[in-house]
Amino acid sequence: MAPRALAFDTFGTVVDWRSSIIRELEEFGSDLGVHRDWAGIADDWRAGYPPAMDRVRRGELPWTNIDGLHRMILVELLEAAGIEGVDDAAVDHLNRAWHRLDPWPDAVEGLTRLKARYLITTLSNGNVSLLTNMAKRAGLPWDCVISAELFRHYKPDPEAYLGCAELLDVAPGELMLVAAHASDLRGAKRAGLMTAYVDRPLEYGAGRRRPSKIEDGEFDVMAADFVDLADQLGA
Amino acid sequence: MAPRALAFDTFGTVVDWRSSIIRELEEFGSDLGVHRDWAGIADDWRAGYPPAMDRVRRGELPWTNIDGLHRMILVELLEAAGIEGVDDAAVDHLNRAWHRLDPWPDAVEGLTRLKARYLITTLSNGNVSLLTNMAKRAGLPWDCVISAELFRHYKPDPEAYLGCAELLDVAPGELMLVAAHASDLRGAKRAGLMTAYVDRPLEYGAGRRRPSKIEDGEFDVMAADFVDLADQLGA
Repeated sequence: MAPRALAFDTFGTVVDWRSSIIRELEEFGSDLGVHRDWAGIADDWRAGYPPAMDRVRRGELPWTNIDGLHRMILVELLEAAGIEGVDDAAVDHLNRAWHRLDPWPDAVEGLTRLKARYLITTLSNGNVSLLTNMAKRAGLPWDCVISAELFRHYKPDPEAYLGCAELLDVAPGELMLVAAHASDLRGAKRAGLMTAYVDRPLEYGAGRRRPSKIEDGEFDVMAADFVDLADQLGA
Repeated sequence: MAPRALAFDTFGTVVDWRSSIIRELEEFGSDLGVHRDWAGIADDWRAGYPPAMDRVRRGELPWTNIDGLHRMILVELLEAAGIEGVDDAAVDHLNRAWHRLDPWPDAVEGLTRLKARYLITTLSNGNVSLLTNMAKRAGLPWDCVISAELFRHYKPDPEAYLGCAELLDVAPGELMLVAAHASDLRGAKRAGLMTAYVDRPLEYGAGRRRPSKIEDGEFDVMAADFVDLADQLGA
């Protein structure tokens, strides 16, 4: 059965967060005249995000969107790196680096083809303003922008997947999540969605591919990139 | 001061609901082989919507989105018109006529120009699926789709305007509501938004223009259509 709509994870699936964040950190360092292991800081910034969401999930933090979580992590990382006295506006600008991530080379072409046949939306833990600014800058042709922020539940909580289907007025089984991460796809599958895995071998950097533990037949579609996904979905 | 983002009312402002609904009712009647005053029914359908939102506002109905309210009104109108025995799928299809409204002739051109300079979003009482389906069919190039449904407060409740600004991460005073209706613009103004009135003299049909009671200087911009709005906003 064909899906009626496709919902896309974004960080790592649509956009190459790591190269983009390293680029932004290098610019930040260049403006300040400081040198650090920017790739390491980018990795740490990203690594800080699942535990931060867990704090929200456990109620240790009130609802805080990703811009808020990213900023908390960033302030700690700057302190740990001995970078002090940066004014708030500069920290805010750096924090919004996550609004300025570059798409993978196949993303816009694949999405444009998929849009001609399917309704395409984001379904990201990124907040609405982040996703909207990202799409505008990168030319991502979403039909709408749906975020975990709207449900105050981060993926892989079922509320995020089911809330997306409800807003689109489709049954969970008519909605397909597209993601490069098995944990996200498993959350979607548990909530009754269809699933498409897209391989992003460079997400964590060249030669730093994480081992895949996906079982044969676990997801409905296995795609090499968005152009391959469009081919497989007849778009 | 220039706005950072523009939020658009849709029914009557972006799309010509009346001609589109009359066309859909005529098709419905033609399929059934029944003749009625379809223009009158279109007007009654639209007129039923503010009182239905008021029932939600007063708590007489639990939160019900516009598809739900439209369907309640439609069922009553069909009964009053003596149209009986229509199957649920046909009523659902007719109800989703509100997802298939045609844009005013200047809408796509004006929005495309405005999008090049500003972030543009819907801010409509229509639900997310309605707005998304409408945009996809009509080619409306929104950066994102924001609906009163996300706040469970219909305009002109302040929660809708303030919620839109919050999701976009802009101050209320940096957001401009664009609408053809003074009551909506007044609600936005009370919430601290900038305002742009767009004239839609044909909204209620040719020769059925409602008297305007707008005071001089009441709104920040007065525009003849979206192309004029783009001219005035330097887009």
